[in-house]
Amino acid sequence: MAFQIPRGTQDILPGEVEKWQFIENTARELCNKFQYKEVRTPIFEHTELFARGVGESTDIVQKEMYTFQDRKGRSITLRPEGTASTVRAFVEKKLFANAIQPTKLYYIGPMFRYERPQTGRFRQFVQFGVEAIGSNDPAIDAEVIALAMTLYQSVGLKKLKLIINSLGDGDSRTNHREALIAHFQPRINEFCSDCQNRLTQNPLRILDCKKDRDHELLETAPKILDYLNEDSKLYFEKVQEYLTNIGISFEVDASLVRGLDYYNHTAFEIMSDSEGFGAITTLCGGGRYNGLVEDVGGPETPGIGFALSIERLIAALEAEGVQLPLSTGVDCYLVSMGEKAKDKTVTLLHELRMAGLRAEKDYEDKKMKAQFKSADRHNARFVAVLGDEELVQNVIAIKDMETGSQENVSLEKLVSYLKERL
Amino acid sequence: MAFQIPRGTQDILPGEVEKWQFIENTARELCNKFQYKEVRTPIFEHTELFARGVGESTDIVQKEMYTFQDRKGRSITLRPEGTASTVRAFVEKKLFANAIQPTKLYYIGPMFRYERPQTGRFRQFVQFGVEAIGSNDPAIDAEVIALAMTLYQSVGLKKLKLIINSLGDGDSRTNHREALIAHFQPRINEFCSDCQNRLTQNPLRILDCKKDRDHELLETAPKILDYLNEDSKLYFEKVQEYLTNIGISFEVDASLVRGLDYYNHTAFEIMSDSEGFGAITTLCGGGRYNGLVEDVGGPETPGIGFALSIERLIAALEAEGVQLPLSTGVDCYLVSMGEKAKDKTVTLLHELRMAGLRAEKDYEDKKMKAQFKSADRHNARFVAVLGDEELVQNVIAIKDMETGSQENVSLEKLVSYLKERL
Repeated sequence: MAFQIPRGTQDILPGEVEKWQFIENTARELCNKFQYKEVRTPIFEHTELFARGVGESTDIVQKEMYTFQDRKGRSITLRPEGTASTVRAFVEKKLFANAIQPTKLYYIGPMFRYERPQTGRFRQFVQFGVEAIGSNDPAIDAEVIALAMTLYQSVGLKKLKLIINSLGDGDSRTNHREALIAHFQPRINEFCSDCQNRLTQNPLRILDCKKDRDHELLETAPKILDYLNEDSKLYFEKVQEYLTNIGISFEVDASLVRGLDYYNHTAFEIMSDSEGFGAITTLCGGGRYNGLVEDVGGPETPGIGFALSIERLIAALEAEGVQLPLSTGVDCYLVSMGEKAKDKTVTLLHELRMAGLRAEKDYEDKKMKAQFKSADRHNARFVAVLGDEELVQNVIAIKDMETGSQENVSLEKLVSYLKERL
Repeated sequence: MAFQIPRGTQDILPGEVEKWQFIENTARELCNKFQYKEVRTPIFEHTELFARGVGESTDIVQKEMYTFQDRKGRSITLRPEGTASTVRAFVEKKLFANAIQPTKLYYIGPMFRYERPQTGRFRQFVQFGVEAIGSNDPAIDAEVIALAMTLYQSVGLKKLKLIINSLGDGDSRTNHREALIAHFQPRINEFCSDCQNRLTQNPLRILDCKKDRDHELLETAPKILDYLNEDSKLYFEKVQEYLTNIGISFEVDASLVRGLDYYNHTAFEIMSDSEGFGAITTLCGGGRYNGLVEDVGGPETPGIGFALSIERLIAALEAEGVQLPLSTGVDCYLVSMGEKAKDKTVTLLHELRMAGLRAEKDYEDKKMKAQFKSADRHNARFVAVLGDEELVQNVIAIKDMETGSQENVSLEKLVSYLKERL
């Protein structure tokens, strides 16, 4: 009986996994420089956390969650995103009481959404995200945006477009909301039923609707930027000033919105400008969520963060034809002839590895010629050949596969000889 | 409303997560030296995979799985261990057809078992495991064991005990099985009902039974080592010879068994010998499973692997009082006084980070004294101080927190000055 992987998920195999390791290492190193620390929350949470933290009215919560009951009948959900869990941990573990604030966190891990599988879209996918919780300084908005942009640049992407917007503070949003209702109400019957509900619940989300996106009223809808009060304007200007000073190009796009109530001030997206990327162009989305910590039961605390999918980052690399600088191959492949020599290579192999070298040998009783072929396949920098005769003489023949030169070295000196040359 | 983490799971927070990162990096580097490549399989699989690959009769499958139905009614299970998924990927993705064999794989990731939560035992836990699939060479058994032992030694554990045993090949096991049945049958009514079922299904598992472990018949039960045929004996001797040659100490423990049918030849466990570790002493278990690949629908292919829990490794570190060499602290903390200077530090901070330094500043509008306090809390190697006055003069004051010495440096030279001194 053969088993299949669940629909919409993927195995990441050797040959492909090295890209993931490279990208994740780059993200971790950047976070270290930017002083974001990793947090690891469970793969599943109580379902209500996401209903509250992601939003009851979102597609994610309404249609896309992997929700099930555990053996005690509790409703459990595989996390569809990382912010709600991170903020839950921040509140439950009282990180707001730590001396160092803001609390700057990052996560890398699998997320789960039950969507229709399609190219580049998986039901299990990996998100990297950061959250800076506890500061209202526009410098932290610029820092969070810079971190995301720097990650993309560090892995070699060039065709990037950063768009930013401000949703303003609560007052600004209330004024904008009223203008939106006044704008859409007279002709709301021309919109889909979802939008008709959104009109009073959350009119901002009408601007996001996939069904009604061509309706002429969208183009003329009141823009949030025209409704920002003085504080919100100053805040947004400062974010832009900082981004400019640190050399990050951006465009202000007044149509960029976030539907959920707890979002405010800075919102941003990073897109790929690469031709041939097709329909999926948004790589990363983020913004400020000054109401979220309170919504999840914590003290009033400002926050900002972003999340990005590693799958999509890899797709962008492919669209731009970027080759990551991945190191493959072994430092030394051991070839043996004869039983005693073969046994000896087991010991030598271990010594090489303990000395820090990537080393390999044959485990299939291959003939000498086939072992050389294996050394090739392993892209070996050096091949060391031991026969029963050499063993008696206590030497091993080392071939440099770059120069083609060959030398006999005493067995005791194998490790030091190779370490010197690598 | 405050939310709680699901019972039996944990958040791994900054301060603790650095240990995990260190251990996982050590494991990844070792795998690179030993030429094991990472494979990433989904968090969940079709339930039948585990029923087949882990064993219908095991506690894991019968009592401990997180099983649920997805939106299409398919039975899905959060993986309780890593081998079944890895072998599923090996078969489904036809890795047996690759030119390089054996296929040497490793995984690190969360596993899920619905057990009663207790100290050191979680419902979500992280396993690191390796699988070498495709070789019957006893050298690969020694290599797999050496990799596990080396990981523990690399992180600083000293009180380790390796026990090994051989379950022999199919013939040896059949002979042993018959001897076991003959041994237990006359008095099987003195055993628990589970063991009564095991007698004909899988008498080896009686030796593992937690309820009957004090029954006198266990001590006198026929030992597998007395039933090994010539080939199996030679195989086991070779494994021991290789382990001895590479300097890995072990004890042969004839009572070490694996209940499932697809296990054969080498079985091993690594335990902590540390006092105060309490009841949990097994850190790692592994062995040969030459029948598993076929059971999961692939061609007849030998395999061997191990799995170990990172949680338990960390518990062993604590029991032995090992301090991991974790690097914390920032290279430079920027202190500013005045609005213009503050704005300038945003740019300087980004420059330092882009140059590879771990750098931080204040985001809470703190007074200068409090900023110095923050620098202390960040364990800063250097503190750079910029006031509006210095800004006019285009200099910044740099204090070396190790020596206490202080110097003024022009703003353009800040990065090169610090890079030289770090």
